[in-house]
Amino acid sequence: MSDWTDCLTFGLSLVRQTKELVLSALEQQKDVKLKSSPADLVTETDQRVEKVLISAIRTRFPQHRFIGEESVAAGERLQLTDSPTWIIDPIDGTVNFVHGFPLVAICVAFAVNKQTEFGIVYSCTDDKMFYAQRGRGAFLNQERLQVSAQQDVGQCLLVTEIGAERDHLALSTMTSNILRLLKLPVHGVRALGSAAVGMCQVATGAADLYFHVGMHCWDVAAAALIVQEAGGVVTDTEGSEFDMMSRRVLAACSSTVANRIAPLIRAFPCQRDDQRP
Amino acid sequence: MSDWTDCLTFGLSLVRQTKELVLSALEQQKDVKLKSSPADLVTETDQRVEKVLISAIRTRFPQHRFIGEESVAAGERLQLTDSPTWIIDPIDGTVNFVHGFPLVAICVAFAVNKQTEFGIVYSCTDDKMFYAQRGRGAFLNQERLQVSAQQDVGQCLLVTEIGAERDHLALSTMTSNILRLLKLPVHGVRALGSAAVGMCQVATGAADLYFHVGMHCWDVAAAALIVQEAGGVVTDTEGSEFDMMSRRVLAACSSTVANRIAPLIRAFPCQRDDQRP
Repeated sequence: MSDWTDCLTFGLSLVRQTKELVLSALEQQKDVKLKSSPADLVTETDQRVEKVLISAIRTRFPQHRFIGEESVAAGERLQLTDSPTWIIDPIDGTVNFVHGFPLVAICVAFAVNKQTEFGIVYSCTDDKMFYAQRGRGAFLNQERLQVSAQQDVGQCLLVTEIGAERDHLALSTMTSNILRLLKLPVHGVRALGSAAVGMCQVATGAADLYFHVGMHCWDVAAAALIVQEAGGVVTDTEGSEFDMMSRRVLAACSSTVANRIAPLIRAFPCQRDDQRP
Repeated sequence: MSDWTDCLTFGLSLVRQTKELVLSALEQQKDVKLKSSPADLVTETDQRVEKVLISAIRTRFPQHRFIGEESVAAGERLQLTDSPTWIIDPIDGTVNFVHGFPLVAICVAFAVNKQTEFGIVYSCTDDKMFYAQRGRGAFLNQERLQVSAQQDVGQCLLVTEIGAERDHLALSTMTSNILRLLKLPVHGVRALGSAAVGMCQVATGAADLYFHVGMHCWDVAAAALIVQEAGGVVTDTEGSEFDMMSRRVLAACSSTVANRIAPLIRAFPCQRDDQRP
C-alpha cells in the first residue's frame, strides 16, 4: 500500500513552482470581488493558482478528487469521500494578498479515507515551506519542527484571526474571546491574517496556541497535521475531536494548555463546510 | 549646518551590525524579567543590544544624548532636550523575541531641537531596513516607500497591538476599539507584536492605518518619521498633533482615513513618558 510519498514530493515541487504566480501578483493592483461579506474577498490570482494546481495534479493523478476554495465558491459540491482527495487553498490570507501585506500562503492537504496523509503550507513571501507527513514528523524547509514545551498558560503567546466574519454576533464573540484570554493573563495575542501561517507558528514553537472560529477546511487541513506532527494537539474550540468541516479549530503545544484555554473560547454558529446548500 | 546624514549613515551601519546579536539570541532560551506587568518583559539581549548601540554612538559622537528603553527602565531620567538625541529601542517586540516569534526590530530615531531628523527600523528576521530622513523620503532597503492611496475606510487594512497593558480598563478599551472598527466595517485588523514593524506596514502601503495606546516614545519615534516621509499622516489617536511622549499614536495613509477612524478610538489614561517619577 502506498505511503503517498510520491504525492507529497509532487505536491511540494508543484507548490514551490506556483510561488512566482503569487509573488508577481502581490505587487500589482488587484481586481477584487466580494464573496460572503465585505471582508471575504477573491481575486483572479486565487482562481488562477487553484486552476494551475488542480490541472497539474489531475494530469499526474487522474483518479484523485479535489476540494478547492475557489471551485467550491464557484458552486462545486464540497464532499470529502474516502477517495484520495487534495484540499486546496490557493491563497490563504486573501485580504493580506489584496493589500500587499506580506503574509500569504499556498495550502495543500491530501486526505485518504478522510484522514490527512500530508499537509503543505508554503509561506510565499519569506520562502518558508512548512510540511508534514502522517507519522513522519513536521518540517520547515528541511528542519524538523517541535512545539514549545510551555505548560504555564500565563506565559503563552496566542494567535487568532480578526477575520472575515462581519455580523455582530461573530464580531462581539471574537473580541470578547480575546478579552477573556488577555485577562488570564497570557503574554499576548497576535493576528496575522493567514490561518495557516498562524497555526504553523504553533508547530515551530514560536506561539503556544492558535484558535479560530469561522474558517474553512482548506484553511486548516494542512496546518492541523503540521501541528500534530510537531508534537502539538489539535481539537475543536470546545475541546472535542478536531473536525476539519466544523469551522472551529484550536491548535496547542500541549493538552494542558489546550484544556485551560478551550473553556474560555465561545463559538458563534457557523454552517458546516459539508452542509453548504 | 549639518543635515545629519553622517549620523544616519553611521546609524544604519551600526544597526545592521547589531542584527547578529539579536538573531543568535532569538533561537536560544532567554532569561526573562518582568517590568511593569506580566507582559512587559526584558531580556539580557535587550540590555546588551542597547549598551552596544549607545557605546558605539558615544565613541563617535561624544556630545550626543540618549533616550534608551532599558536605560530608562534602569532608572535614567527620560528627558528630550534640544540637544542631538538618539532614541533607542534595542528590541521592539520583546514578547515576540522571548517566544522566538519572527517579528522583532531594532529602532533608532535621532532628534535635534525636539524634531526627528531620521528614523531607522530594522526588522531583523526578514532583513528589512526601513529608514527615513526628514524631507528626503522613506525607504525599505533601497526602495522608496509610498503609502497607499486608499480613501475608502471600508477597504482599509488596520494594524494595532494587543499589547503589554494588563489592567481591565486598558484591555476592555483595546478590544472595544477593535470591535467598533470592525463594525465600520474595515477589511481586517492585524496585530504583529512590534509597533515599529506594524507602523512601517503603513509606510509600505500594505496597511492603511496603525494605532496604539500605551506604547513609548522609543517604540514609535523612528517609524512615525518613516510613515510621514512615505506620504502618510501621524497624529495623536484623538486626531491632534503627534507627541511622541503622549503614549498615543495613529499613523494613516491619508488624513481622510485618519479623520474617519480617530473618533472611534478611545484612549485609556497613561502617564506621559516624560512625566515618569
